[in-house]
Amino acid sequence: MKRVINFNAGPAALPLEVLEKAQSEMLDWRGTGMSVMEVSHRGKEYDEMHHHAMQSFKEIAGMDDSWKILFCTGGASTQFAMLPMNFLTKDKTADYISTGHWSKAAIKEAKRFGNVHIAADTESNGVFTRIPEQNEIKLSSNPVYVHMTSNNTIFGTQWQYWPNLGTAPVVCDMSSDIFSRPFPVEKFSMIYAGAQKNLGPSGVTVVAIKEDFLEKVATDLPTMLAYKTYAENDSLYNTPPCFSIYILDLTLDWIKNVGGLTAIEKINKEKQEILYKAIDNSNGYYRCPVEKNSRSWMNVVFRLPTEELEEKFVKEAKNAGIIGVKGHRSVGGIRFSIYNASTVKHVKDAVAFMDDFKIKNK
Amino acid sequence: MKRVINFNAGPAALPLEVLEKAQSEMLDWRGTGMSVMEVSHRGKEYDEMHHHAMQSFKEIAGMDDSWKILFCTGGASTQFAMLPMNFLTKDKTADYISTGHWSKAAIKEAKRFGNVHIAADTESNGVFTRIPEQNEIKLSSNPVYVHMTSNNTIFGTQWQYWPNLGTAPVVCDMSSDIFSRPFPVEKFSMIYAGAQKNLGPSGVTVVAIKEDFLEKVATDLPTMLAYKTYAENDSLYNTPPCFSIYILDLTLDWIKNVGGLTAIEKINKEKQEILYKAIDNSNGYYRCPVEKNSRSWMNVVFRLPTEELEEKFVKEAKNAGIIGVKGHRSVGGIRFSIYNASTVKHVKDAVAFMDDFKIKNK
Repeated sequence: MKRVINFNAGPAALPLEVLEKAQSEMLDWRGTGMSVMEVSHRGKEYDEMHHHAMQSFKEIAGMDDSWKILFCTGGASTQFAMLPMNFLTKDKTADYISTGHWSKAAIKEAKRFGNVHIAADTESNGVFTRIPEQNEIKLSSNPVYVHMTSNNTIFGTQWQYWPNLGTAPVVCDMSSDIFSRPFPVEKFSMIYAGAQKNLGPSGVTVVAIKEDFLEKVATDLPTMLAYKTYAENDSLYNTPPCFSIYILDLTLDWIKNVGGLTAIEKINKEKQEILYKAIDNSNGYYRCPVEKNSRSWMNVVFRLPTEELEEKFVKEAKNAGIIGVKGHRSVGGIRFSIYNASTVKHVKDAVAFMDDFKIKNK
Repeated sequence: MKRVINFNAGPAALPLEVLEKAQSEMLDWRGTGMSVMEVSHRGKEYDEMHHHAMQSFKEIAGMDDSWKILFCTGGASTQFAMLPMNFLTKDKTADYISTGHWSKAAIKEAKRFGNVHIAADTESNGVFTRIPEQNEIKLSSNPVYVHMTSNNTIFGTQWQYWPNLGTAPVVCDMSSDIFSRPFPVEKFSMIYAGAQKNLGPSGVTVVAIKEDFLEKVATDLPTMLAYKTYAENDSLYNTPPCFSIYILDLTLDWIKNVGGLTAIEKINKEKQEILYKAIDNSNGYYRCPVEKNSRSWMNVVFRLPTEELEEKFVKEAKNAGIIGVKGHRSVGGIRFSIYNASTVKHVKDAVAFMDDFKIKNK
């Protein structure tokens, strides 16, 4: 058995320790004589783990008791609709900042429910190569919320400052960079993230929401689409995605063991520095299309001199045990997704491969 | 490590072979050097497994190519809303047969979207002890669909005949008895099931839908709530709950290996016969409140002479390694959920415990 260097964009690499623990207790979880998939979601053992995961999430994020943690399903894509369904009506406006593919998908869903004001949009010729600056953001007069996407997996951009977004509740889709670095939790009223990048496997979407924002939800929504259903039942109204939550719980424990977000940030900072330096010092052989102050620490995108070389690069990387490096089909090129579970060593090994490839394919 | 006799109502026992396989390939799935949780849902290996699961489902059910298999999330509870959202409007009527707690939950959601006609309702004094007979079912003149629940986990009832429900499309919530026995697939236009009883773990809901029924869906629904999104993208519009689908795939393989639904039915028939016989031959010590022709093969509910004895029974069963036997909190009593993964031996061992308990607690 040989583990590869996994640069998949999501689902993505998980910490080896998490997988090994899940493996070891697959037939007998916590002495129950059952797998975690076989225990009742109403039982003591499951309940303890479920709430422990919620508590760990709050602890890592630095959230106090004014926050509720919800475990939803259907990915961030389902949140794109649930959010406006819960807060936006035909006579109201929500502000959205458009920074990439997923922002646009969120905007599309919001428009079904009410007015959308685009507070900033950095699309140019069909692509996004930067995050807007503070002075480019023009909020509407009284939005029900302001929505932003902290990191853009496809275009490899990420907010490298936390914008001032006025007094309305700020909602952030953090799917692809959550818990990769500390963040100012007091700026937000809701954050959400599909788990399958930095938090665990697909199948669970974590929604963290402030109680005072939750007070404003619409009533009479379909039960499973109302945030209140999750909040009032600790996400146990019906059977939750137990195994995904279990891996989330183990991954949160792993983050705490590493030393929390300050320690994680230090590692992620080093990883992206090594990688962008290799790109910038390649005399133009590798080119990153993203403006320097908008570069993502999570999804490092770059081009080679030709598409033929990019294809060769993907193939030879795979042979060298480095997988998932092909850019998103909508933009092409190369992408290394270096989420929390990839290590400094993985990145160094990949850079050694890049240097070697460059020499052999001048 | 000692595995218990697991009579949980759901999440429930999984076949040991399935768990052992998942355990063995946790760090390296199909030679990818990654867990199945870490591979891309756009990759060849995942794609193959995903479609294999769909194909196995159709094969086991005896569904031809007029059926589409969708992998949704949010459990059957989310289907309670998605179904009417896709098919029912304010000017139309859907017929529902009310046979228990989950039927009522489905009816509650449907009423948000259009008219609901209750075609039959066997509730009496707050409980359901039987399935309606054919002549009790009164359909409306032109329903958009007729909805039934094939098995009722809480009340321990199950349809032991397949009713004639007219010419409208019939939709069946089979969450708690799917693939426990052959069923006349030609009678239905849609069936759905949360996986966590007979199909795998929680986190994925299988929806099987006929193409000609799918043609009738509403347009302009939120993307993730439209059946068309799943159908047109083979449930890969966004990241699906990969691990749950993987365990589903293994469980479907297991069903095929056992010999399909005819072989499964034979085993389930024997299990329920042993158990109901033990109850009926206990001279009234154990009493099943369900009418004989409505008894569930999946959830066998019974009472003891007193609630104190029931409490003692639950405790001593647990000590004897038989878990999950406490009845649902809304009805009390004892419940053995004997889904596909529980064996004849499990049931015989449990009956030996019952006989012993009865002697010691006369």
